[in-house]
Amino acid sequence: MAVTDPAVTAKLLTPAAVHNAYTLIKPYIHTTPLLTCKTLNAIASTPQSAESLRGTPFEGQAPAKPKFRLFFKCENFQRIGAFKARGAFHALLRLIEQKGEDEVRKRGVITHSSGNHAQALALAASTLHIPAYIVMPSISTPSKIEGTKSHGAKVVFSGSTSTEREAVVAEIQSQTGAILVPPYDDFNVICGQGTTGLELEGQYAQFVKENPGLSVHKDSPGNATLDAVITPIGGGGLNAGVATYFSDKSTRVFGAEPSFEGGDDCRRGLAAGSRVESVKTLTIADGLRTPVGLLNWEIISDKSKEAGVFSVTEEQIKAALRLVLERMKVVVEPSAVVGLAVCLFDEEFRRIVEKEGGDKGWDVGIVFSGGNTTVEAIGKFFSG
Amino acid sequence: MAVTDPAVTAKLLTPAAVHNAYTLIKPYIHTTPLLTCKTLNAIASTPQSAESLRGTPFEGQAPAKPKFRLFFKCENFQRIGAFKARGAFHALLRLIEQKGEDEVRKRGVITHSSGNHAQALALAASTLHIPAYIVMPSISTPSKIEGTKSHGAKVVFSGSTSTEREAVVAEIQSQTGAILVPPYDDFNVICGQGTTGLELEGQYAQFVKENPGLSVHKDSPGNATLDAVITPIGGGGLNAGVATYFSDKSTRVFGAEPSFEGGDDCRRGLAAGSRVESVKTLTIADGLRTPVGLLNWEIISDKSKEAGVFSVTEEQIKAALRLVLERMKVVVEPSAVVGLAVCLFDEEFRRIVEKEGGDKGWDVGIVFSGGNTTVEAIGKFFSG
Repeated sequence: MAVTDPAVTAKLLTPAAVHNAYTLIKPYIHTTPLLTCKTLNAIASTPQSAESLRGTPFEGQAPAKPKFRLFFKCENFQRIGAFKARGAFHALLRLIEQKGEDEVRKRGVITHSSGNHAQALALAASTLHIPAYIVMPSISTPSKIEGTKSHGAKVVFSGSTSTEREAVVAEIQSQTGAILVPPYDDFNVICGQGTTGLELEGQYAQFVKENPGLSVHKDSPGNATLDAVITPIGGGGLNAGVATYFSDKSTRVFGAEPSFEGGDDCRRGLAAGSRVESVKTLTIADGLRTPVGLLNWEIISDKSKEAGVFSVTEEQIKAALRLVLERMKVVVEPSAVVGLAVCLFDEEFRRIVEKEGGDKGWDVGIVFSGGNTTVEAIGKFFSG
Repeated sequence: MAVTDPAVTAKLLTPAAVHNAYTLIKPYIHTTPLLTCKTLNAIASTPQSAESLRGTPFEGQAPAKPKFRLFFKCENFQRIGAFKARGAFHALLRLIEQKGEDEVRKRGVITHSSGNHAQALALAASTLHIPAYIVMPSISTPSKIEGTKSHGAKVVFSGSTSTEREAVVAEIQSQTGAILVPPYDDFNVICGQGTTGLELEGQYAQFVKENPGLSVHKDSPGNATLDAVITPIGGGGLNAGVATYFSDKSTRVFGAEPSFEGGDDCRRGLAAGSRVESVKTLTIADGLRTPVGLLNWEIISDKSKEAGVFSVTEEQIKAALRLVLERMKVVVEPSAVVGLAVCLFDEEFRRIVEKEGGDKGWDVGIVFSGGNTTVEAIGKFFSG
């Protein structure tokens, strides 16, 4: 796809484009499970304590009484442990379609990332027999470097600033002609990530059919629709893809960010009316440290597609992480639980659910974006 | 069931008894998932390094080249987070059958435990509207006490020696007539735990049917049988129940124990020809610190039912635990992974698989017995 005005490209992001992406990538990805957890439903549906509202705009007011049924889309069980496999496979399959296998295999693909996108691109490239160059800061943790190498990618080191990384990318591109596959701000990547929403919707409908007594939508088990879906927002590819998929449906799409050191750039941008272009945060939700991309901003700032973006504190992320690990017995990375943390702790969001959901409550899809962490990191999150 | 000679009672432990238990408990328990993991298959099927065999009887010999396909029965997703729910529900449902609802509800049930059996009995009792008394050492961790109380049981504290605990149990029984439900050495508890094997076998056959290309038994996908099942052995209820279930089938049943501070009492007893009656170990596999029970010993020491018991070190347990948490993204407690650790690290077991499985290898069911741990504990296992 040639570089164009993001506002123009955004118009091409349609539910049909997500459906087409799904057809293409389905043989290459896992259909990840949709899990439920009665304990978490009960906790989310319990009003917060007066004490926990102290120091917030809701201090002294009666806490909201929302009713939640949560449906966890477990992309931590996706290939390479994160939803990023969807976008990477889709981008490469489209490249092959557009340029032909021979050219893509001759030139190879390249990206700069130290996170899940690097491993996803490495896996997709090795599966499709395409050389992959991954530019990583030389200070990256050895496990991440090994993980990326284990999928057969050529890891090239750079300094840690974006200028240094981009210089290395440009140098390799000039030598090899390698094609850049951006981590999130890309039409085909967004369509790929949006398939998470498509799959989630189908699995939810199936669940309600099989468990008619368990849904809040007891009246129409054969025709159930999620009231809302909430996903993390870092660069915004997942959230924009999911919002694209649900854009012609009644399901509301929300985003969640860490507020630490201004990590809630998307929420702040929406409040100010213009995108925040840079962000520098060391939030434990390390997958969400990037500013939202230009194309993703077009989708997320479109009120007909996005119902709202909320942010949570580091302590709230840790509390949600503990619940998922200890109660659901599922390993997720901190970035994955910001949506759950919003449901549990954001009083403004909880008031919306109480008001709109009423006695029936809401059926909410929560995307667990990934599970790439280590036992040492888990220990550190909760020490002291 | 009246107290009888364990050798006599053991004869009544038949596959049919496990089937009957399943019919009774099915409405009350979760059908836990059977998971597979390509990464763990690959790791288990890679020969150990020469270095890792140093200091073992296999030093200097060529490492075994077994081929594994592993099927993980995830009882960490069972109600209360462990297989113990199966035995507890079965024991209480049989009590009601034998003594009538009124009498059981009037007298109540009692056990002494600080672990998963306490929570399982509390859940089963509250579900069936039976009062439950749980005698716990007063030094138990607050989270375990809270967990047990949260299911509505009356927690009564005692000293931490078995004499002190038994005195408190006897006192409550004299006051209330509460009926003792032992944690593992009990006919109905064993039959309940054995349903884990029954469910595992059915799910495995279903998996092979749906994925004919993935099983090593490519020749007979419609008629596939697990080559082996391995479970942890603490008191031995799970292992004895599973060995009972498979006793008329070709699937071999193995047991796994921690070797730390003599925690491998069952393995040592088998080697010596008589049951080891007491054990005092602080292995991190805290669910496996008890000696194997009398009735369970009858089953496990029967060579027609049990194919062998192996033990693993603390380091091997930690290595297996790390793999399950980081690669499978599933939270298990240390006790749960001793079977996997045997597959990965016990050279004697690996030689058996190489020899018997040959080019085809073995399809092995591994029971993950539970997932009740905390993020702090995970941190501690891997610190320093």
